[in-house]
Amino acid sequence: MTSPTGFLEKLAAAQRTNASLLCVGLDPQPEKIARYGVSLGEFLRAIVEATADQVCAFKPQFAHFAALSAEDELQAIIDYIHTKHPAIPVILDAKRGDIGSTAEKYAAEAFDRYGADAVTVNPYLGGDTLQPFLQRCDRGVIVLCKTSNPGSGEIQNLELADGSRLFQQVARLASKKWNGNQNVMLVVGATWPEELAQVRAIVGDMPLLIPGIGAQGGDLRKTLKYGLTADGTGLVLSASRSVLYAGNAPHNFAQKARLAAEAIRLAAQDLIA
Amino acid sequence: MTSPTGFLEKLAAAQRTNASLLCVGLDPQPEKIARYGVSLGEFLRAIVEATADQVCAFKPQFAHFAALSAEDELQAIIDYIHTKHPAIPVILDAKRGDIGSTAEKYAAEAFDRYGADAVTVNPYLGGDTLQPFLQRCDRGVIVLCKTSNPGSGEIQNLELADGSRLFQQVARLASKKWNGNQNVMLVVGATWPEELAQVRAIVGDMPLLIPGIGAQGGDLRKTLKYGLTADGTGLVLSASRSVLYAGNAPHNFAQKARLAAEAIRLAAQDLIA
Repeated sequence: MTSPTGFLEKLAAAQRTNASLLCVGLDPQPEKIARYGVSLGEFLRAIVEATADQVCAFKPQFAHFAALSAEDELQAIIDYIHTKHPAIPVILDAKRGDIGSTAEKYAAEAFDRYGADAVTVNPYLGGDTLQPFLQRCDRGVIVLCKTSNPGSGEIQNLELADGSRLFQQVARLASKKWNGNQNVMLVVGATWPEELAQVRAIVGDMPLLIPGIGAQGGDLRKTLKYGLTADGTGLVLSASRSVLYAGNAPHNFAQKARLAAEAIRLAAQDLIA
Repeated sequence: MTSPTGFLEKLAAAQRTNASLLCVGLDPQPEKIARYGVSLGEFLRAIVEATADQVCAFKPQFAHFAALSAEDELQAIIDYIHTKHPAIPVILDAKRGDIGSTAEKYAAEAFDRYGADAVTVNPYLGGDTLQPFLQRCDRGVIVLCKTSNPGSGEIQNLELADGSRLFQQVARLASKKWNGNQNVMLVVGATWPEELAQVRAIVGDMPLLIPGIGAQGGDLRKTLKYGLTADGTGLVLSASRSVLYAGNAPHNFAQKARLAAEAIRLAAQDLIA
């Protein structure tokens, strides 16, 4: 499932090979897929085939499968990626968070059942509940820090007694305390460039997963300006709807998805150069 | 699935009918069930039949089913409870939390796919992400506030600029801002009686889900002292492992589970009286 060298190395290698910071999120929406005249499985495989050389990761979103009772299709597309494109890591976007004995079950689900290379997790319950994920040295643990939604500040930007914001404390804990196995990343929404700069200042070269580039309207230029590491990497730019549903017809949806992915990839490369 | 009067009314009615504040958590652990010589489905149905008149709710824990690829069994036991014991509400313990468009999928999963009466959710992403759950007026939304694990203070007890703690702010938001449909509860671990008293002071009569009574060692006396509302209710005391696995043999595991449940129920009733 995962290369022996670990998730972050696999991710960095895919970024180099494909000259891409783009991650395509796999969020199946049946009402949109219906236009293409294909099954869910056919749609997902077509998207993967059309974009695999344009991306550094794929990110299936758990809720979209769960709402469809489509666990088998989730398993199938992850297996398909591992088989056909073994160099591209799979991030299971499930935002898990529960007490330790239950978190063990969630780690088993993500890493053993589904074979994901990395999983997104929620920090609210504290670092002890992340241990079952963190101790899987060969897998990635991607901790929510500053999420892309409009109301994320209600909790995440609360001011702490020391004058910092809650998301900054999460960034400190994730980078200084929870990252003993060097397998942690953070989520920072592209919709919050100022906070992105603050997180980057705290976490050094830790890679960041950046949702919100596409349909949510995040600013690519600012994201790269404030988020890139000194070597011009350190970011995974995630787009879902804007790539998956770029087309509107059976004959060209895969090609349109590829073009949308390539456009984001190249726009980022141009801005980095 | 849910009575037209809503989750909190259904819960209160079950508490009255069974004279019980006890919720039995359904956390299937195959290595323990193996001792009983029954299938997962047989085990769960036996536990439900043995304890249904001792409880005010059942709480299947999502991760334990997901790690076993047992979504069908999760669906089956929820359907079974609704059919055989329609007065007992089902809380799906899944601790969901994601941005709005994805949270809609999680709400569909919990309430429409599985037919749960209530679901547990994580507040870290902010109230806008809870809207897809909150707007389902007939269902319950149970927000993590102060969780039972030893390290919950790392984030939840952070001191804010106004001198309060993060979990207190979550309690304020949940009771003052997110509860427009009167369908919100909070999770407070039995392992934190002092914090329980502080939450009770903030939220008035809002019912609280209290995990940690059994195997985690929470103190029942202090929980009731600090958590009960003036009318001697307002709590849902959740026990899982200490009930489910009280027995060790095929011929008596259901009876032992019943006795363990009855013991907790009666201990609480004695302390209230």
